[in-house]
Amino acid sequence: MINVENQLDTFLEKNLDLYIQETSELCAQPSISARKEGVLECAELVIQILERHGLQTQKFETAGSPVLVGRATGESERTLLFYNHYDVQPPEPLALWTTPPFQPAVRDGALYARGAMDDKGQFIARLAALDAVRHAHNGSLPCNVTFVVEGEEEIGSPHIARFVREHTDVLECHAAIWEEGGTDPEGNPITTLGCRGILYVELAVETLKLDAHSGGAHHLPNAAWRLVQALASLKEADGKIAIAGFYDDAHPPSAPDLALFDALPDTEEWLRETYGVKEFVGGLTGDDFKRAVFNPTCNIAGLTAGHQGEGLKTVIPARATAKVDFRLIPNQDPDDIFTKLRAHLDREGFTDVRVTRLGAMWPYKASAEDPFVQLAKRNAEAVYSRAYRIAPLAGGSSPIYAFAAPLGDIPVISAGVGNSNNRAHSPDEYVRLDDFLNGARHIARILNDFAKLTQ
Amino acid sequence: MINVENQLDTFLEKNLDLYIQETSELCAQPSISARKEGVLECAELVIQILERHGLQTQKFETAGSPVLVGRATGESERTLLFYNHYDVQPPEPLALWTTPPFQPAVRDGALYARGAMDDKGQFIARLAALDAVRHAHNGSLPCNVTFVVEGEEEIGSPHIARFVREHTDVLECHAAIWEEGGTDPEGNPITTLGCRGILYVELAVETLKLDAHSGGAHHLPNAAWRLVQALASLKEADGKIAIAGFYDDAHPPSAPDLALFDALPDTEEWLRETYGVKEFVGGLTGDDFKRAVFNPTCNIAGLTAGHQGEGLKTVIPARATAKVDFRLIPNQDPDDIFTKLRAHLDREGFTDVRVTRLGAMWPYKASAEDPFVQLAKRNAEAVYSRAYRIAPLAGGSSPIYAFAAPLGDIPVISAGVGNSNNRAHSPDEYVRLDDFLNGARHIARILNDFAKLTQ
Repeated sequence: MINVENQLDTFLEKNLDLYIQETSELCAQPSISARKEGVLECAELVIQILERHGLQTQKFETAGSPVLVGRATGESERTLLFYNHYDVQPPEPLALWTTPPFQPAVRDGALYARGAMDDKGQFIARLAALDAVRHAHNGSLPCNVTFVVEGEEEIGSPHIARFVREHTDVLECHAAIWEEGGTDPEGNPITTLGCRGILYVELAVETLKLDAHSGGAHHLPNAAWRLVQALASLKEADGKIAIAGFYDDAHPPSAPDLALFDALPDTEEWLRETYGVKEFVGGLTGDDFKRAVFNPTCNIAGLTAGHQGEGLKTVIPARATAKVDFRLIPNQDPDDIFTKLRAHLDREGFTDVRVTRLGAMWPYKASAEDPFVQLAKRNAEAVYSRAYRIAPLAGGSSPIYAFAAPLGDIPVISAGVGNSNNRAHSPDEYVRLDDFLNGARHIARILNDFAKLTQ
Repeated sequence: MINVENQLDTFLEKNLDLYIQETSELCAQPSISARKEGVLECAELVIQILERHGLQTQKFETAGSPVLVGRATGESERTLLFYNHYDVQPPEPLALWTTPPFQPAVRDGALYARGAMDDKGQFIARLAALDAVRHAHNGSLPCNVTFVVEGEEEIGSPHIARFVREHTDVLECHAAIWEEGGTDPEGNPITTLGCRGILYVELAVETLKLDAHSGGAHHLPNAAWRLVQALASLKEADGKIAIAGFYDDAHPPSAPDLALFDALPDTEEWLRETYGVKEFVGGLTGDDFKRAVFNPTCNIAGLTAGHQGEGLKTVIPARATAKVDFRLIPNQDPDDIFTKLRAHLDREGFTDVRVTRLGAMWPYKASAEDPFVQLAKRNAEAVYSRAYRIAPLAGGSSPIYAFAAPLGDIPVISAGVGNSNNRAHSPDEYVRLDDFLNGARHIARILNDFAKLTQ
C-alpha cells in the first residue's frame, strides 16, 4: 500500500519552486485596498489562478471590491472552507525595503514582497495542498472544497459580513481554515481559537479656517493641542482606557484559556529582540505578559498636524487628525464602544473633536475541544515533529465572526506558512520557503483526512 | 519754497508700479530657508537690487546663509539702520494658493506671492523711500543709511546675533527700523516696542526598531502614545504651562504698558472673522484679550507619527515627533526654558523623549518715550491722517535683541507696508498697493527728518 502522506510530501517538495513562482506572480500585482490601488486587477488574476487549479469560480460584486469564490466537488458530502484575501497593506515607508515591495525577490531561502505571507503566500500554499491531494487520489478529492477570497481584509472587511449572510447556500461547510497560520517563535505549529475585534476611527479637530503664525498662540486655538488633549483623556495614568463603560461587557480569560496560556512558550525575548523593545506596555512580563492579549487596547496608528518637514515653521495648525484603533476582546461590541467613545469626548469637553468610523470587526472565539481542532493538531505534529500549540486568542482581528455564526457555529482554525516574524504590514515582508512547504504539507493532510472526520 | 513732503509723495506715486514690479522680481526667486531652497540665488539678486539703488554692498558669509549689507553716506553724521530679510516661509500647503506662491500676480489692488509682504515687499518699499529722499535732495541724502538683509529670519536667525557682535563697526547707528510694520486692523499706523522671544524644539520618541502590527498593542510600546502623553504633561488643565519655574523670570506688563494696551483698538472680532475662531484660547476677551500677548505660549507647530494617508493602516508607530515653539516674554531666557523643559520631561518619566533645540531668540522691549518713536509718530499721523498706535509687545519674535544691545541700546521701531492681515506664513500672502505706497511715504519722511533729530 502506498503511503498517501508520502505522496503528498513528495509532490509538494518537487513542485515547491513552481508554487513560489506563482506566489511571486500574485505578489507582483499590487492590491492596496487602503487606496484602491490594483485591487480589481488582482481580483482578475486570482480568478485565473483559481481556475488554473481546477476550481469553478464565481465573482460576487459588493459595494466595495469583489468577493471571489472557487469550488471543487469531492467524494464525500463534507465541505472544508478556506478564507483568504487578495488585498495587502500599503507598503510605505518605501525607503526601508531592501528590494521594492511589488518586485518579489527570493534571497536566503525566502521570498520578499508585500503580501509574500499576508496573504498571497498563504493562499497559494493552499492551492498547492489541493493539487497534492488530487494528485494522490488520481484526480479526485476526498471532500468538497470552497475558497472564499476577498479584497478588503486590510481595511476591515466592511462588506464580508453581509456577503456571508446573503450567500450561506454558496458557503455551506463543516469547518474552515482561516487566512493565517503557521509556526510560533520556537518553530512549533500553532493555532488560535479566535481573535480580537476592532473599532477603527479617525479623530479630527479644526480650530481655525487657516493655519496661523504662532506669534498669535496666546489667542488662536491650536488644533494639534486639542487633539493631543483629547487623546490623552482616553487613558488613565496606569494605562487603562478611561472611556466610561469600556470594559463592562468584556469576558476575561476562562480557566481553560489560562491553562492554554500556561502551555504556550514565552515570546517576551523574541518580541524584545525583533522590535528592540526596552520595556513592554505597563511593564508586562511573565504570566501577565502571556495573558495580556485579553487586555483590549487603544492604539494611535497615526498623527498628523501642521509642519512635518525638516526645519522650523512657526505655525498654529488649523487642523489635526489621529487614526486610532481599539482591539476588543470577546463580548465587546464595536458599535457600543463607538457610542461610548463619543460620549466620553463629549463629557470631557471635546465636542469639537469629530469621530469618523473607518471600520469595525467583532471578536470571535472557538472551543479547544472541537474534533476539527484535534485533527489539525494530529497532522501538525506529524508534519512538524513538534508539539501543537493552541493560543486562546490572537491579538489581531479578522472577519471570522462574520463566517462562524451564519454558517452554523462551525469551528475555524489557523494553519499555514507564517512564522510569527514575517514583517506583515512592515517593510521587507517575506515568507520562508521551508515554511511554505510545511504549511502546504499540513493543509494537504487536513484535506486528505477531513472526509473521515465525524462530528 | 518747495514742500519736500509733497515731492516725496509725488515721486512715490509716480513710480509705484516700478517698485511693485521690483517686488515681483524679488518674490519670483524662491528663498525658503527651512530647506535651503533658492536662498543663495536670492542673496545674489538682493545684492544686485541694493546696487541698483546706489548702495555700496558687502556680503558677509556666516555658518548659514550670507548677511548682506548696503550702505549710503549722507550729509550728517547720523545713521539710520534698516533690518530686513530675504528668506521666506515654506509655501505649503500649495493647494490653498489661488496663484502659485513664486509666480507673483497683481489682482484687486494687491500683489500676491510668498514674501509679498514678509519681507520682500517691506524691503523694496524702503528702497523706494530712499530713492524718493535722494530725488527730493538733488541726489544726496540727509543722513547715512545702512541696510542689513539676512537670509535666516524664518528659521530663527541662528547666526545674526554673532554677526552683529562681530561687526558693530559696520553697523554703528543711532536708531533702527525693523523688518515689519504698517497698519493695524482699523487702518491706523502702529509700531511695537518689542517682541517676544522664542524657543523652538523638536520632541522625538522611538519605542520600536520598526513599525508593528497593532494586534500587538497590548505588548509593544507606541511612540505616538508616548509623545501625546509627554505633550499633554506640558500644560495644566487651565492652560498654564506646567513646566516647573517656567514663569519665574517673566516680567508682567508695567503700568505704562497697560495704559498703551487700553489705547489700542479691539482686535477680537477681526481675529475671530479672519481665522473663523469660535472661542479664543482660555476664553479670553476684553482687556484680558489685549494683554494676553504677555502670556508666554507653548505651541505645537506640527505632529507626525505612523499612518497619515487615506484609509486604514493598523500600525503601532515606532517613531513620533512634534515641533514645539515657546513664545517668551521680556526677561525669560530660552536657554533657561530649554533646561527646565528637559528637567520637566525627566521628572514626569519621559526620559525617552529626546528634545532637540532647533532655534532660539530672546525677547526685546523699548521705551514708548524715546524721541525716535515720537518722530515716527509725527510722520505716521501726517501720512495716514490717523492716530499712531503703540503696542507694547508683538506676539512674534525677531532678532531685535541681537541688534539693540550690542549697538548701544538704540531705539528700534516698526514701520512699513503690512496691514495685519497679509497672510504671512499662510497661503495667498499678499501686499496691498495702497499700503505699499503709504509705507514708503512714511519711511521717506522718517529718513528725511532723521538728521534733524537730536537725542
